[in-house]
Amino acid sequence: MNVINAIPSPVRLKAISAPGQPEPTPALEQLYRGFEREMLVPLWTEIGDLMPVNPKSRASAHLWHWDALVQLADEAGRIVPVGRGGERRAIALANPGLGGRPFATPTLWAAIQYLMPGENAPEHRHTQHAFRFVVEGEGVWTVVNGDSVRMSRGDFLPQGAWAWHAHHNATTQPMAWIDGLDIPFAHYTESQFFETGRDTLDPGEYIKPDLSRSERLWAHPGLRPVSRLEDLPVTPMLAYRWQDTDRALNEQLTLEAEGYEATLSPGHAAVRYSNPTNGRDVLPTMRCEMHRLRAGAQSRTKREVGSSVFQVFDGAGLVTVGERQWNVRRGDLFVVPSWQPFTATCDADHASLDLFRFSDTPIFEAVHAYREQFDAQ
Amino acid sequence: MNVINAIPSPVRLKAISAPGQPEPTPALEQLYRGFEREMLVPLWTEIGDLMPVNPKSRASAHLWHWDALVQLADEAGRIVPVGRGGERRAIALANPGLGGRPFATPTLWAAIQYLMPGENAPEHRHTQHAFRFVVEGEGVWTVVNGDSVRMSRGDFLPQGAWAWHAHHNATTQPMAWIDGLDIPFAHYTESQFFETGRDTLDPGEYIKPDLSRSERLWAHPGLRPVSRLEDLPVTPMLAYRWQDTDRALNEQLTLEAEGYEATLSPGHAAVRYSNPTNGRDVLPTMRCEMHRLRAGAQSRTKREVGSSVFQVFDGAGLVTVGERQWNVRRGDLFVVPSWQPFTATCDADHASLDLFRFSDTPIFEAVHAYREQFDAQ
Amino acid sequence: MNVINAIPSPVRLKAISAPGQPEPTPALEQLYRGFEREMLVPLWTEIGDLMPVNPKSRASAHLWHWDALVQLADEAGRIVPVGRGGERRAIALANPGLGGRPFATPTLWAAIQYLMPGENAPEHRHTQHAFRFVVEGEGVWTVVNGDSVRMSRGDFLPQGAWAWHAHHNATTQPMAWIDGLDIPFAHYTESQFFETGRDTLDPGEYIKPDLSRSERLWAHPGLRPVSRLEDLPVTPMLAYRWQDTDRALNEQLTLEAEGYEATLSPGHAAVRYSNPTNGRDVLPTMRCEMHRLRAGAQSRTKREVGSSVFQVFDGAGLVTVGERQWNVRRGDLFVVPSWQPFTATCDADHASLDLFRFSDTPIFEAVHAYREQFDAQ
Amino acid sequence: MNVINAIPSPVRLKAISAPGQPEPTPALEQLYRGFEREMLVPLWTEIGDLMPVNPKSRASAHLWHWDALVQLADEAGRIVPVGRGGERRAIALANPGLGGRPFATPTLWAAIQYLMPGENAPEHRHTQHAFRFVVEGEGVWTVVNGDSVRMSRGDFLPQGAWAWHAHHNATTQPMAWIDGLDIPFAHYTESQFFETGRDTLDPGEYIKPDLSRSERLWAHPGLRPVSRLEDLPVTPMLAYRWQDTDRALNEQLTLEAEGYEATLSPGHAAVRYSNPTNGRDVLPTMRCEMHRLRAGAQSRTKREVGSSVFQVFDGAGLVTVGERQWNVRRGDLFVVPSWQPFTATCDADHASLDLFRFSDTPIFEAVHAYREQFDAQ
Repeated sequence: MNVINAIPSPVRLKAISAPGQPEPTPALEQLYRGFEREMLVPLWTEIGDLMPVNPKSRASAHLWHWDALVQLADEAGRIVPVGRGGERRAIALANPGLGGRPFATPTLWAAIQYLMPGENAPEHRHTQHAFRFVVEGEGVWTVVNGDSVRMSRGDFLPQGAWAWHAHHNATTQPMAWIDGLDIPFAHYTESQFFETGRDTLDPGEYIKPDLSRSERLWAHPGLRPVSRLEDLPVTPMLAYRWQDTDRALNEQLTLEAEGYEATLSPGHAAVRYSNPTNGRDVLPTMRCEMHRLRAGAQSRTKREVGSSVFQVFDGAGLVTVGERQWNVRRGDLFVVPSWQPFTATCDADHASLDLFRFSDTPIFEAVHAYREQFDAQ
Repeated sequence: MNVINAIPSPVRLKAISAPGQPEPTPALEQLYRGFEREMLVPLWTEIGDLMPVNPKSRASAHLWHWDALVQLADEAGRIVPVGRGGERRAIALANPGLGGRPFATPTLWAAIQYLMPGENAPEHRHTQHAFRFVVEGEGVWTVVNGDSVRMSRGDFLPQGAWAWHAHHNATTQPMAWIDGLDIPFAHYTESQFFETGRDTLDPGEYIKPDLSRSERLWAHPGLRPVSRLEDLPVTPMLAYRWQDTDRALNEQLTLEAEGYEATLSPGHAAVRYSNPTNGRDVLPTMRCEMHRLRAGAQSRTKREVGSSVFQVFDGAGLVTVGERQWNVRRGDLFVVPSWQPFTATCDADHASLDLFRFSDTPIFEAVHAYREQFDAQ
Repeated sequence: MNVINAIPSPVRLKAISAPGQPEPTPALEQLYRGFEREMLVPLWTEIGDLMPVNPKSRASAHLWHWDALVQLADEAGRIVPVGRGGERRAIALANPGLGGRPFATPTLWAAIQYLMPGENAPEHRHTQHAFRFVVEGEGVWTVVNGDSVRMSRGDFLPQGAWAWHAHHNATTQPMAWIDGLDIPFAHYTESQFFETGRDTLDPGEYIKPDLSRSERLWAHPGLRPVSRLEDLPVTPMLAYRWQDTDRALNEQLTLEAEGYEATLSPGHAAVRYSNPTNGRDVLPTMRCEMHRLRAGAQSRTKREVGSSVFQVFDGAGLVTVGERQWNVRRGDLFVVPSWQPFTATCDADHASLDLFRFSDTPIFEAVHAYREQFDAQ
Repeated sequence: MNVINAIPSPVRLKAISAPGQPEPTPALEQLYRGFEREMLVPLWTEIGDLMPVNPKSRASAHLWHWDALVQLADEAGRIVPVGRGGERRAIALANPGLGGRPFATPTLWAAIQYLMPGENAPEHRHTQHAFRFVVEGEGVWTVVNGDSVRMSRGDFLPQGAWAWHAHHNATTQPMAWIDGLDIPFAHYTESQFFETGRDTLDPGEYIKPDLSRSERLWAHPGLRPVSRLEDLPVTPMLAYRWQDTDRALNEQLTLEAEGYEATLSPGHAAVRYSNPTNGRDVLPTMRCEMHRLRAGAQSRTKREVGSSVFQVFDGAGLVTVGERQWNVRRGDLFVVPSWQPFTATCDADHASLDLFRFSDTPIFEAVHAYREQFDAQ
């Protein structure tokens, strides 16, 4: 015979006088004690929180200044070593609304990673999807399944689940970049696997090519190698270079100026990093895009299901998220929680405001739960 | 000029001596104060929790006895009215590992719903996907977008997002059933919308047909109405009747006895409720199945990413989940957390053990994060 | 060194005076001789045929009377044996517009097959997709990959590419049915493979079950065996029974009478035989449907890309195809060529007109070339 | 009352003594007369042709020399005007096995198109899919839906169904290129629509940009405009430039030389022109690729369902198709019929053999009828 539930119940129920709830009575109190004993919670005490008219995010609209991040990362560079166990000198944004956990939003992780001259971050792999984005600097190579990928300003490096990877700083300067991962989503849904690899790569693996092999194979517009015809869930391209991104954004604005439809809205160009094997998002859980507003232009005000993290890549402007508003400049990171209205405006005295964005949208699209809405302006 | 971050930081960091973490020093303490001030958390203090070798669920393997649930629901029936605001007399399983919240698992809601003779649960709709499963009783009709659906023992009633629905007990007996929803997932990912409908339906809408219109249109094996050719994300069939489910399970076991491949493993038959427009899961976020083990048969021991809730529909048996083990009987509900090994065995003196199961597997398949593993036995 | 083109040219060109063509001159005649020598043909002499404003089918609208077919098949039954080499006593419809070839339409094969008491049609397999439809009679079993499938009036038996199959008449009466295949399409596109199997099955394989194993596993509405979760290009159900088809059609008409949307147009019910693994057509190249017009009802006049073959299953009515019009009755077969307008009307003194239809539509949908158009009436 | 079948039957049947066929008798002759009268053909007289063990193509392996084509096209340029009615000065390959029709293979059209200095080919559109490939020359612009596309050596210009298009030669030299279309497939399946547009474009539309607007929007590796997120059945990129193709092929051979997997087989690089919205073929009915064999390299010998047309873009080599073998050089076109083994070898004294290829493979993949086989060498 088995004895069950021999643990103290975490359920605590209190009869209160409130709309939609039964009037407090001794009988109700007794019922609630029974619920607690049997690990039960009624809908009627929870419905306001669980079934709101539209999403009310626990996460806050919040801004992190790049200068402050880099300064703290640099201090960490001097006193915290990189190695097995801690694995990475990565310092994550902790959304003020999420209880001090290293979660930029309920689903997204965003961190500054920092590597001192000559340092190596040891090889490992995990099922969380990841990417790197470089707002400034260069000189680190990320080695993914043995393929060395240069990191330079403006480059976007996606890295799908379960790929071995290590980092090496081949210069005499520290380098910072941001890591984006779906760590909170994998944590919440309890779907993570992790494996450590070699502590150090062979010196011969720290080669420093201008282009990774993945780019030499894949980064040709509209062309696929006939030797690689599978539809892959994650992109096989390990780097999307700034030169290409910049040109694509410029062309959209020029086409618009010539009178053709190319932009999202007047003065607002945007490209999505995509998987050349299927035209879809680079990673199954994260959408990654670069947006450019020309001088004085303003984006349409949009709400959408799910959350985004933005980093200012260049320029300066004004950003409004729900009831918050900030002037932003290069490197600044901010968060747009679910269903909060978002607008960005490029300062009139800057050529453009370039915003790197990543979001959890593919999760919602995959389960048919995505909604968006444009507000009148 | 804007002032940011004028709220107290929720981040609390403590330098400790531990593997993979930097040695506590005054400099480290000072760095941590800086992190707290700027709402930052380093990976090295969190990696053990966030990046385990495999999923370590916060949820517990847990069993709820049906008798206890029904007794409490019946008491609630006598003292808690059903109406607008509370919306439903639904009493949810609260997993002991999940802090007293009404979450059976991190992603799934499971509740007993109870309706007294003549009662109406008012009309509403929400983006959370839902289903009803009837372990015993009959006499309630669920009205979905104006289509009356009878509920009888063994019936499975899926109900996709954003469909108007109300319940009516047309008998002189109370009736209980279970509701399954993706409420915790929608809550966590902040993707919920909700709308109230009419407080009471017209009496003429409480018709009591043997089959809903949805079944008359769709419940014909392999046949689609040519007037309805869209690929729908949720099944258009509002009821899957026990008679069909039972026959399908029996045929699998009979085919196995005749020497043909039909079962999952010896003595273990299983059917999945499916969407006839695309052959996929009935709901984008929940997989729903009925399993039957014949007398003495044992399922293969399986671990998988994601969580399940089971209800015993009939028979009796022994269930092992991780380190827990229970004898189960009709109506009992239990939870299998992510990556915990699960085995079920039918008692030798029962004809069969029938287990209704629902899980969050479609979410993981949609984002390519699903894994499963069969353990040697 | 190789000598090429040492065969007489099949090209014959004639300079003529016609719109869009160059004026005949000696120089043009000389040019045409050069084209002939080098196996070339100019667009300008062919464009009218190859690039019409809309499809002009070479196939004719044509009707075959069932009585005549059965009588000839019966004569063949007495003088033409069934066996290896000829393989089947199948007599195909030869569209008058297609040069005497056994092609009902440019892409579709339709034949009456006839099996005398006790006869066996030997086992073979081929990449052409096939189905059987039974307008009358019973007593033949088709054995598909070892699974015996009963054939009775109204049953539809799809059989995808490369499945072993044989037929056996287990009664003392001859039996006729129709075979539908994509033989002309496979012939034209040159994609056929064929293999002979055993000349006779073991007597033990000629079992006569009421339901095939495929039906016992699959023919349960909305339920899939968890042991078979692949998305298959062809349906795994080897028979769709008349009882189900008839009930589904009746329900549509009853729902319509009750005021609900269920039919294609007033008085016109239709079901499509579908693949339960993906909700799509039973076969990748052939769409198969059953249509029912109630007494006096008329279908909407429709043109579509691609061709159809119809067989009258029951009732009587008037059918219009392009400029042809026929009174039709049980068993009659007729063809609707590409883009010819089609209308059917049930006689007022018959309860219904039931029309079995198959078409090549999936081919056009697969390559995004499908169009349809409804004519004003 | 209607009289049917009042036309002479095209069916002609002859009783002969042959394997698999019934012995000729007067009764059989009489049966055949009945078949002829009723427009019927038995399987047993046709099965050898219709159901072979594997595809036996009616099309021949055949070679067309570019020099001869260009010379005849040039003569046509002098005596045959371009204009409405004839529409294009296109001269099509007529496969010797296909009865003198302008069909390179049963499904594919390949023609040399020729435009004299200053000439315009008038605007039209059709549902046949098309592309242009330029083996030499430049100076013609193709205007697709108002977007001017430059044509230069090595460029590939796909153009999906129903797009308005015209050509203009802006130079003082004639220019030749090849057109590939699915005209024979659309003709056979009877799915063609055609519309004439303006006879001449406005002079302002004959702009001569280096890059079309489609390229400026789309030709950026791995980047999609966020303003264009639909999954399109045909590629939105109107030109794939030789510079990109050449670099992609070179990278594959260099990667192979460095020891990495990148080529199809040793010394054999290949890229497929793909649709950036879904990673699939540029056109739903035609696969288009560029292959490069380095000096002395030989491709694997391959058979496949469906037919291909090749044009030698550069280099020289030896080509074997079934029992035919040819030495080929720049511009030569040849055909590989269904299931005939194909091998290409680059001459040892040329740097490479570059072969442009198009085939009907997407049709077979779409209906699950594709097979391929590599022969031992």
